[in-house]
Amino acid sequence: MALNRDGMERKTVDLLLRDCAAIPMDQLGRVLERVDIAIDGDRIVALGQDLPYVGRQTLDGRDHVALPGLVNAHMHECLTRGLCEDRELSRWLTEICFPLDAAYTPADITAAAGMNQLEMIRSGTTTFIDIYRHPAAAAAVTEQSGLRGIFSPQVIDEPTGVGEALADTENLIQAWHGRGSGRIHIWVGLHAPYSCHPESFTQGSELAQKYGVGLHTHLAETRWEVETLQARYGMTPVQCLERWGCLTSRTLAAHCVQVQPEEIDLLQAKGVRIAHNPSSNLKLASGIAPVLQWLRQGIPVGLGTDSILSNNNLDLFEEMRLAVFLQRLTSGDGAALPAEQALWMATRGSAACLGLEQEIGSLEVGKKADVILLDLRAPHLWPRLQGSLNNLIAQVVYAAHGSDVSTTICDGKILMHNRQVLTLPEEELRHQVGSQATDLCRRAGL
Amino acid sequence: MALNRDGMERKTVDLLLRDCAAIPMDQLGRVLERVDIAIDGDRIVALGQDLPYVGRQTLDGRDHVALPGLVNAHMHECLTRGLCEDRELSRWLTEICFPLDAAYTPADITAAAGMNQLEMIRSGTTTFIDIYRHPAAAAAVTEQSGLRGIFSPQVIDEPTGVGEALADTENLIQAWHGRGSGRIHIWVGLHAPYSCHPESFTQGSELAQKYGVGLHTHLAETRWEVETLQARYGMTPVQCLERWGCLTSRTLAAHCVQVQPEEIDLLQAKGVRIAHNPSSNLKLASGIAPVLQWLRQGIPVGLGTDSILSNNNLDLFEEMRLAVFLQRLTSGDGAALPAEQALWMATRGSAACLGLEQEIGSLEVGKKADVILLDLRAPHLWPRLQGSLNNLIAQVVYAAHGSDVSTTICDGKILMHNRQVLTLPEEELRHQVGSQATDLCRRAGL
Ligand SMILES: [Zn+2]
Ligand SMILES: [Zn+2]
Repeated sequence: MALNRDGMERKTVDLLLRDCAAIPMDQLGRVLERVDIAIDGDRIVALGQDLPYVGRQTLDGRDHVALPGLVNAHMHECLTRGLCEDRELSRWLTEICFPLDAAYTPADITAAAGMNQLEMIRSGTTTFIDIYRHPAAAAAVTEQSGLRGIFSPQVIDEPTGVGEALADTENLIQAWHGRGSGRIHIWVGLHAPYSCHPESFTQGSELAQKYGVGLHTHLAETRWEVETLQARYGMTPVQCLERWGCLTSRTLAAHCVQVQPEEIDLLQAKGVRIAHNPSSNLKLASGIAPVLQWLRQGIPVGLGTDSILSNNNLDLFEEMRLAVFLQRLTSGDGAALPAEQALWMATRGSAACLGLEQEIGSLEVGKKADVILLDLRAPHLWPRLQGSLNNLIAQVVYAAHGSDVSTTICDGKILMHNRQVLTLPEEELRHQVGSQATDLCRRAGL
Repeated sequence: MALNRDGMERKTVDLLLRDCAAIPMDQLGRVLERVDIAIDGDRIVALGQDLPYVGRQTLDGRDHVALPGLVNAHMHECLTRGLCEDRELSRWLTEICFPLDAAYTPADITAAAGMNQLEMIRSGTTTFIDIYRHPAAAAAVTEQSGLRGIFSPQVIDEPTGVGEALADTENLIQAWHGRGSGRIHIWVGLHAPYSCHPESFTQGSELAQKYGVGLHTHLAETRWEVETLQARYGMTPVQCLERWGCLTSRTLAAHCVQVQPEEIDLLQAKGVRIAHNPSSNLKLASGIAPVLQWLRQGIPVGLGTDSILSNNNLDLFEEMRLAVFLQRLTSGDGAALPAEQALWMATRGSAACLGLEQEIGSLEVGKKADVILLDLRAPHLWPRLQGSLNNLIAQVVYAAHGSDVSTTICDGKILMHNRQVLTLPEEELRHQVGSQATDLCRRAGL
């Protein structure tokens, strides 16, 4: 307890954000002007005007808007980007991706995770799910970076040597699940129904159930995938997962571009969650996912960036904007998927995808203190209008970039302030990432 | 002349950029590592390794890449953004856009131009064409900002009171064309074939010819426009412009989403140039323009942002990225519209759209010194790879944002350095823009 100069008792908290606007996402479309946010330990303890709190540390929120930290519902922590671009997909996969995948060592992933997590901190993402190689190395970086991360080792049976083995997943769960003060989670990861054996999916699903963790996979990303599985098994990708016991509420499926209406019914009935990746779906020419239909049916939909190979950045602001634009295009309706719904997908929707809807995704008392501040003084975010003309959500979704994030807080800890990342050594990592990436390319024979 | 410490004679120039990478755009896809760029007055006088020059001012280009300043081939300098979004297009036009258009005063445009030109400087755009209201007010801001701008008063005959009058255009040409040391140009502007009378187009075309200036218009943006003109004149938008004498090499047409293959032949035969606006075309649900076909036929194609009402920012990096993604989608080809061609559109292509291809659009000796530097130390632009793996163009097109521009030079003058704009008073303008925009909305009855 502390006494204010007006004699009122004020509780002391670890961190107090003062006088910011806020889009708390407790309700769709709600905007607050000039509020305080009190954080104690890893939790939000109060949010409102003129809070009777004193902060051990106080941040001035004037000219800033507070948002829940964004949540990336599908990504891979990779070390290269911009490499041998602009090839037809099958050539790109066989000539670039597979040789790289096969060459990755834990040291490569340590460097990759440093770069990727720096980028996420700098663009306002506080939680992510990573499906890729050597997840223990990436998780170790997360202990330092302060982000909240789910790691799902990317099991690939064919071709051999480019992915992780399902047999190692259980060890990983035992060694890493819950570490980093609970910020680190381990899930089962299976690359896709065309690259993993049916028994891997069945065993993976059992493993997920045994430990009460999720199962992450790519699903129905391309027409090629649908045709391949039809030829191999006489089933669509969704039918394969159903047959193999993987259409459950534990499952988070990425992409789902090529799903039929009756399959959407099935996904909804089984409680499957979907990660939408608009940039990647365009760049790889996969198509536009039927997001409006998913939302209409109440499927939990989150937003992902996919990897820096197919995006090429991890900026969820771009994904929000593009998610809206693409549904405008397919519906021909200038009112389809309003801005606040895109913001919902990047926060509450993605949180639900990760099974963390009780803990993150909104600024509410009792939830984890995962908060970002955007600097509204940038000219591309002018003008601020008040009252019935309040344009804050539109500015955030349609005009902002990750670079407008000035402060990133995760689990109550400040990871970046005034664009300075406090938890990872940026300058040192830049040189390390450059030489490690060059070395990886050499080992991959590129 | 000055003597170097090694005794060699060195010429003195106004500005020397040292040791930067460069994507000069003299040839498609060319990347230079560690070059110097010598600028004297408003021109590039040398570009190469270890140039024998001394600069009156020298900028350290290490860890940066130099590019030609980007060129925005279609925009409107507006004062509001994020206002009453997510409405069906016709409601948005009649309830928001027309009342705003009608209420604009020169003071509103002064504030709008301050905000828009700040944003362009900060995102690496050095030349733009503006089609909107009260162009003398916007041109006056350009004298101060240091940008290169073409102003085409937006003539609208119907509805009345929302646009400029063609009768004033000639005065504007006489008063403003060539001012700002030649940075300011005046063109004829006609909003669209559905909102201007046929005789306005005919007279506008004659006026453009009389003064040797260009003619800018919107063309075939939506299916609604095609149907409206078919019903009114029995002709498509392209056929209207042909009939009205406006399909000439002076004409820059924005959008052209809804053009038929035989109309593309006609546009090509007549030498018409096209400004492509991918974000706006999606946000307003207009469709995807047939850009690959235009390029295949050799039509000069530039990139535009359209206004902050339909984008909602002026970041041409986003437009480059999206332009590629959309052609991937329509073609189903992961190799369609490679990154270097998107960069060509935003530089050489847009320069050709504005009739300035001899002066700007590439870093070449003798051309105007319109140069931007991107800071490659940002984590989302890692890693830099060399030799056959050089990934610089892909980083710029697929991963960068306008906020990665650290230095903007136009006409040989530094407009921004280390993200500090030197020619416009940013903090002062922010408050002015906020109150002016609030006032405009009130006057528009919003
Ligand atoms: Zn993926
Ligand atoms: Zn326009």
